[in-house]
Amino acid sequence: MSDTNRAKVRRLAEYLSREIPLTTAMQVEIDHWEIHSLVVSAPLQPNRNHKATAFGGSLYSLAVLACWGLFVMRLWEEGLDCEIVIQEAKAAYLMPVNSRLVARCNFTDDKTWSGLMAQLRRRGRARIALGAEILTGEDAAFTLHGRFVAIVS
Amino acid sequence: MSDTNRAKVRRLAEYLSREIPLTTAMQVEIDHWEIHSLVVSAPLQPNRNHKATAFGGSLYSLAVLACWGLFVMRLWEEGLDCEIVIQEAKAAYLMPVNSRLVARCNFTDDKTWSGLMAQLRRRGRARIALGAEILTGEDAAFTLHGRFVAIVS
Repeated sequence: MSDTNRAKVRRLAEYLSREIPLTTAMQVEIDHWEIHSLVVSAPLQPNRNHKATAFGGSLYSLAVLACWGLFVMRLWEEGLDCEIVIQEAKAAYLMPVNSRLVARCNFTDDKTWSGLMAQLRRRGRARIALGAEILTGEDAAFTLHGRFVAIVS
Repeated sequence: MSDTNRAKVRRLAEYLSREIPLTTAMQVEIDHWEIHSLVVSAPLQPNRNHKATAFGGSLYSLAVLACWGLFVMRLWEEGLDCEIVIQEAKAAYLMPVNSRLVARCNFTDDKTWSGLMAQLRRRGRARIALGAEILTGEDAAFTLHGRFVAIVS
């Protein structure tokens, strides 16, 4: 990451730890960001369950944070401060995760993004579908498909 | 609750705090249990988001714990120690929650339960669909529909 991106990532990290205390309990870190992708991670220990694998609520929360964080940062890039809320989500647990939890959200559809920005500027409100996955080795262990709404503050 | 039920609830509470550290960070408490229903709750403060309402990951985690906990306790009642894992879930965020988070899971379908027990005893494995909701006042603020699997230990 460039120094500029590192500074932006720090802004998001500070925002999370100040505003969403559970991210501190989960020990969430932001590993990587660029305009189309955000990677967040957390150690297994505070997020473990009774089988010493990742707790289902932690996998879900981390994946939501990857989506939400990518959306927030891309809106910051556009110079827009929005409230972003999750409306609905589907989660699938495919395999247990028994090491560090790493969630990635990619959003590469620039055409959909342009439409969304136009709608946000016109109506002050727009919805977006975002997905994230958590891998174990090279296989998807957990997937999330969520719908988020941005409302211009 | 009867004294017997209170002792059973204490067993579940100790199990959660020992085995799933995030439930301690969330300050999850078990409010009520009987064979068809489990109510769990958590204060807003450790589960808040940037808008001083409940963090989406906390709502989801608490609802999953209500389902999972009801399933665990009912299997304990049957004298069965099982591993219970979540396979998939759908979450809907209907309204913000700006006070204590209270999640209830009801499962009153005794006929389905009997079939599930027969399957568990025969095959050592069975699936169940469970739902939970979190109210704000009298209205549903959050709903979860999940599918869980029990595997006899």
